[in-house]
Amino acid sequence: MNTKQTFGSTLLVFALLLPAMALAGIPDPGMQVEKGRTALVITDPQNDFLSPKGVTWGVVGKSVVANNTVENIEALFKSAKSSGIPVFISPHYYYPHDHGWRFEGALEKLMHTIGMFDRKDALDTTGFAGSGADWLERYKKYIQDGETVVTSPHKVYGPETNDLVLQLRKRGIDKVILAGMSANLCTESHLRELLEQGFEVAVVKDATAAAQVEEGDGYAAAVVNFRFLANTVWTTQEAIQTMAGR
Amino acid sequence: MNTKQTFGSTLLVFALLLPAMALAGIPDPGMQVEKGRTALVITDPQNDFLSPKGVTWGVVGKSVVANNTVENIEALFKSAKSSGIPVFISPHYYYPHDHGWRFEGALEKLMHTIGMFDRKDALDTTGFAGSGADWLERYKKYIQDGETVVTSPHKVYGPETNDLVLQLRKRGIDKVILAGMSANLCTESHLRELLEQGFEVAVVKDATAAAQVEEGDGYAAAVVNFRFLANTVWTTQEAIQTMAGR
Amino acid sequence: MNTKQTFGSTLLVFALLLPAMALAGIPDPGMQVEKGRTALVITDPQNDFLSPKGVTWGVVGKSVVANNTVENIEALFKSAKSSGIPVFISPHYYYPHDHGWRFEGALEKLMHTIGMFDRKDALDTTGFAGSGADWLERYKKYIQDGETVVTSPHKVYGPETNDLVLQLRKRGIDKVILAGMSANLCTESHLRELLEQGFEVAVVKDATAAAQVEEGDGYAAAVVNFRFLANTVWTTQEAIQTMAGR
Amino acid sequence: MNTKQTFGSTLLVFALLLPAMALAGIPDPGMQVEKGRTALVITDPQNDFLSPKGVTWGVVGKSVVANNTVENIEALFKSAKSSGIPVFISPHYYYPHDHGWRFEGALEKLMHTIGMFDRKDALDTTGFAGSGADWLERYKKYIQDGETVVTSPHKVYGPETNDLVLQLRKRGIDKVILAGMSANLCTESHLRELLEQGFEVAVVKDATAAAQVEEGDGYAAAVVNFRFLANTVWTTQEAIQTMAGR
Repeated sequence: MNTKQTFGSTLLVFALLLPAMALAGIPDPGMQVEKGRTALVITDPQNDFLSPKGVTWGVVGKSVVANNTVENIEALFKSAKSSGIPVFISPHYYYPHDHGWRFEGALEKLMHTIGMFDRKDALDTTGFAGSGADWLERYKKYIQDGETVVTSPHKVYGPETNDLVLQLRKRGIDKVILAGMSANLCTESHLRELLEQGFEVAVVKDATAAAQVEEGDGYAAAVVNFRFLANTVWTTQEAIQTMAGR
Repeated sequence: MNTKQTFGSTLLVFALLLPAMALAGIPDPGMQVEKGRTALVITDPQNDFLSPKGVTWGVVGKSVVANNTVENIEALFKSAKSSGIPVFISPHYYYPHDHGWRFEGALEKLMHTIGMFDRKDALDTTGFAGSGADWLERYKKYIQDGETVVTSPHKVYGPETNDLVLQLRKRGIDKVILAGMSANLCTESHLRELLEQGFEVAVVKDATAAAQVEEGDGYAAAVVNFRFLANTVWTTQEAIQTMAGR
Repeated sequence: MNTKQTFGSTLLVFALLLPAMALAGIPDPGMQVEKGRTALVITDPQNDFLSPKGVTWGVVGKSVVANNTVENIEALFKSAKSSGIPVFISPHYYYPHDHGWRFEGALEKLMHTIGMFDRKDALDTTGFAGSGADWLERYKKYIQDGETVVTSPHKVYGPETNDLVLQLRKRGIDKVILAGMSANLCTESHLRELLEQGFEVAVVKDATAAAQVEEGDGYAAAVVNFRFLANTVWTTQEAIQTMAGR
Repeated sequence: MNTKQTFGSTLLVFALLLPAMALAGIPDPGMQVEKGRTALVITDPQNDFLSPKGVTWGVVGKSVVANNTVENIEALFKSAKSSGIPVFISPHYYYPHDHGWRFEGALEKLMHTIGMFDRKDALDTTGFAGSGADWLERYKKYIQDGETVVTSPHKVYGPETNDLVLQLRKRGIDKVILAGMSANLCTESHLRELLEQGFEVAVVKDATAAAQVEEGDGYAAAVVNFRFLANTVWTTQEAIQTMAGR
């Protein structure tokens, strides 16, 4: 066989392999945690999602309990703090003027109807402590330690409307360990926007949870999309080991 | 009962209803099609997704066939053109320099490995006609009619990296009928970004399709998220009737 | 002269006219104020820019006095409120964590050094009233009337890091009357980003002002760029007449 | 004097110094060029701005000649290539559909009127070679060397409508040396958006130029704003020395 034939055959083999590669499954690019370039980002660690008194407990509570979400998010906070990984929080708040919007998507409408994440005013914290918009009590020592960066609130689901991307960049962060609430809404929209902005993202799939309703299982949908989209998907245990450098 | 008591009772009833409302299901805000403010947006109507010769047919073909996606997208094109609804296309192309990226999410890595949407250069169309990056042949008469607006390519999944939002705004569009490929990747990322940018969006759930692989059913995930996120979800038949003003 | 010659001559005349058109001056596209689609947006109406006690008065005070900026912004507030034009405020705040940024542009560095717009915390308003970050006292009745929309703070100069664009879109606004502080920094960055997002923008050139220092006259620079960029440039008097529909 | 008094005096001195610091001038934070993290970004190196045959030569030609812009941009290309600094180009193109926009800012209107940067279609390069939208001939060997990253076109002035930010991030770039055309329009809008996205930016002030018309001197405005906004401002000579590591 001459050189030209060999080249042709190689091309042929490669062409035959291509569909096979596609069928063989989705790659897992992975993500190396490098100190100084990696942060933990938590979306919506607030009562309305994570407390049995929160307005969405009826639809997300089962998923929160099943995943051990409350404890897993706390384990991530502890691990990041002890490993020197900076922590960023992207909260969700609605002010009275947000109730004057002329149109809303389905879940936006629901959130407004049930008064989710409602606050009196950006400059008035009356009634905030302990409200549905407040942090889950057990997370306050991590969030209010003077080191954690709390961004402005996002207003739909993603960080397009707040300063999360800038805050990460201003600290030299280009890799994100992502968790929080809720899986297929704010967490997934943060994942998607961080990818569009050129971050590497590892999602912690059991440090999140979602609504499971007649219209669909939000958690199941999120887990599929995390696997398709993210650089990698971890359990809380894997995230902790990776942050600790083990 | 005096006024004060009545007011108190009303509040109580309302408070009791709140969790019930949350549990009662997700609202469907709907979307009115208004001529001059509404457009049809199609993502990735390209061979690599929709032709049996495309590089992803092995994983998306079953879903494309099941949904009748190819015919449904064509029906939307026809209906929009005959109803005077402007059409915008957001394509997906990769150039040689995109293969020099230092990191990629899972599906990005896969797309690059299988040469999906590859083009030689933005200023060189040699070999483009009929390639995986080209339009599905049957759509060319709608896309190349001198009226359809073709945006720059998006480079991850959403329109954050192209001019779709600007092109819509420069034509006075604030309502979008969204379809195209693939359901849980580019279509859903377009949905999410359009919502963040303050558009109303109706997704046509059977004029899209997605990869169904061992790691998960991308179409099932997308359908759940469309219902949670969009202003409304239509079938192709409903979209056509609405565009025609029936 | 035959047809071909005529065509050639026409082409020639057109070719000669092109540079002339360019030289003939910059067009003024204008902007029609339509109720329900138009808003007044004010950037940084805060003490640190507009009060003689503010930290930048030494460099912007002369320009603020020369333009009658304080009074002109108030006149715009009054006029918008009485004309039913909705008002949006995009403020500038820095929190302790913003002082941990690893790098800053020139004016960012200066603002941080002089403690401009500093606040204790997004959830702690202790010491805020009357501080450099607070609204100018005379504007409070317009800003805190329960109707004005106050967005999250922008963190560099433009609205990329806050929810201004979403808030405008959620109210159906696509035309903006823009004023506030300071002319070549936040006001101009808001102008530029609003144009990129597909808004029409009229800038009110004497309801703004800027630093005039050894390194350059920020106000003169802004006025040139307003004229090049905006849909139109108005005086406060023209803006008021237009809002009032005269 | 006891400790408390000393502390009080120090505070007093500091308080007195603050306004002085503001008045003393604008800081120059500088920018360290680090290989692997730094890129050269050139906006609009196209005939319509830089060739005497281009449609804007009548208004920008004087500034281009005065700054030696054509030669300085070439010197930057050469220096970056020989120093292993990656080069990114952000071009400006208009397609027939862009002429269907319903509203435009002043310079946008002018650019459309004079046919600036016009191309036939994104997928049709007929008539492109040598047109106003094409690269300046002498730059082609740098831009078309198979290494330079050419982004999608920006459509107003900044990179909000293209993939420049993503392309930079996907290569690990967080520092940008910025030059190109025109100073107060696309170059300055790129500067502003890159700052909002958390890049460090050094602007090369004599490798750019701008329109100087009756309505104002665009170059003078840009130079003031570069000094206020950027991390630092260099001459071409300084940029070359810094890239070469001297």
